[in-house]
Amino acid sequence: MKRSDRLVGLTNYFITHPQQLTQLSYFTERFQASKSSISEDLDIINEMFQLEGIGALERVAGASGGSMYVPKFNKSNSVSFLQNICKELKDPSRILPGGYLYMSDLLGNPKILKEIGKAFVTAFSDKQIDAVVTVETKGIPIAYAMAEFLSVPVVVIRRNMRVTEGSSVSINYVSGRSQRIQTMVLPKRNLQEGLNVCIIDDFMKAGGTVNGMISLLEEFKATVVGIGVFAEAEDEENERIIDEYTSLIKVANVDTKSRQIDVSIGSFDEKQ
Amino acid sequence: MKRSDRLVGLTNYFITHPQQLTQLSYFTERFQASKSSISEDLDIINEMFQLEGIGALERVAGASGGSMYVPKFNKSNSVSFLQNICKELKDPSRILPGGYLYMSDLLGNPKILKEIGKAFVTAFSDKQIDAVVTVETKGIPIAYAMAEFLSVPVVVIRRNMRVTEGSSVSINYVSGRSQRIQTMVLPKRNLQEGLNVCIIDDFMKAGGTVNGMISLLEEFKATVVGIGVFAEAEDEENERIIDEYTSLIKVANVDTKSRQIDVSIGSFDEKQ
Repeated sequence: MKRSDRLVGLTNYFITHPQQLTQLSYFTERFQASKSSISEDLDIINEMFQLEGIGALERVAGASGGSMYVPKFNKSNSVSFLQNICKELKDPSRILPGGYLYMSDLLGNPKILKEIGKAFVTAFSDKQIDAVVTVETKGIPIAYAMAEFLSVPVVVIRRNMRVTEGSSVSINYVSGRSQRIQTMVLPKRNLQEGLNVCIIDDFMKAGGTVNGMISLLEEFKATVVGIGVFAEAEDEENERIIDEYTSLIKVANVDTKSRQIDVSIGSFDEKQ
Repeated sequence: MKRSDRLVGLTNYFITHPQQLTQLSYFTERFQASKSSISEDLDIINEMFQLEGIGALERVAGASGGSMYVPKFNKSNSVSFLQNICKELKDPSRILPGGYLYMSDLLGNPKILKEIGKAFVTAFSDKQIDAVVTVETKGIPIAYAMAEFLSVPVVVIRRNMRVTEGSSVSINYVSGRSQRIQTMVLPKRNLQEGLNVCIIDDFMKAGGTVNGMISLLEEFKATVVGIGVFAEAEDEENERIIDEYTSLIKVANVDTKSRQIDVSIGSFDEKQ
């Protein structure tokens, strides 16, 4: 096989196997090439990945060594992506009764989700994350978009007990929005104890849901190393009960009468 | 930029932009190369993609033409993947009270989801699909895994009305499992009328849920071109009300006393 063919095969392999250490011998066998040839291929790929702003190949020397694609994305690309999203969300036809904003079309689009995933990978690039935790329903695709790049599992907290999950831990919490008592459930088997987790959700107002998630995660002795929400909204009536979080966009001053709305990039832009 | 660098950049571009027609001029500008050089690059990539069993580059001639990565995966790879999943699901510790099977760890793993997505792309490769439709909660990541390769939106049907979605269509249906009346809701804006949709869910017993989805989709004048479920289970008490579907795996004879279970590849293997 020629170098040009190998480069295509290897690039595909690394892009589709992020954060996975693979031994050189796997590639020498798969592409029937010498270690030195593969090693040169990896140098080319590594340089090009860095040039393209999608991360780098990390090389680990020694018998159990190998190479691994570590995704790391240009923050400026995420910022321009978010600027476009803000523009789109300002469309007055998105304002729903009660001051909510229609976003389901964006969160149903795999291309947009991929970019959201990249932004969260960038926001938490300095953290060691063992699992991404979300709560049903709309946070789920965002959590997966991020977890794919990190190659870690997604854990989905549910709103009510299901018969199909086995023994579970449940908590009650006060929803910031409605001040009602609500429930959250996580089956014991779904999250190992003592992991570093990143909480991801689609929307945050006062932060009651995220606060509930933190309480539930304490039962699993998890360390919350990061909290990321796609959109945060002002809540005039309630003070925010969560301080440290990263929001990609910020929604404010939804005026259902004049159909006006302020949408800007959230705390994502302030960090790093 | 050298050919070797371009091949890395181009491969990354196509893998991360499936089903997206891109003009040659985009590449000549981005990689500062002549049309003929890029054209040769695309030939190399196309051949290698086919050799690796991940699809092909389609070329469209003419002024508005370009090239597009069309994912198409080897069925035999999916079969070996599913054989491993079957082996894992046979583990007696997965049997839950009531004869359910614990699968959340598998459906929380991005790598496994990617393979599930590939299998469904293969199963429905002869269909024109405009959107993937699922119902909350566990079908969501599977639907996205498939939709990513097809580059089409995911539409999530909900179990109850939410205030944040605007005007919605809801239906009642009889759950096959419990014979209870249940509700399904889909906001009007979430699905354009008259599309070709593929229904995806994690689990099917009698098929009541899928049947409910079909009824709801009729309200949107959608044509259901395919139905895919990750796992199907026998239901001795109820006859199956859905005939045409593709299941990746089949669960039968769950014996909670002797902790035995039969898991095999589903109808996926019989097709094509």
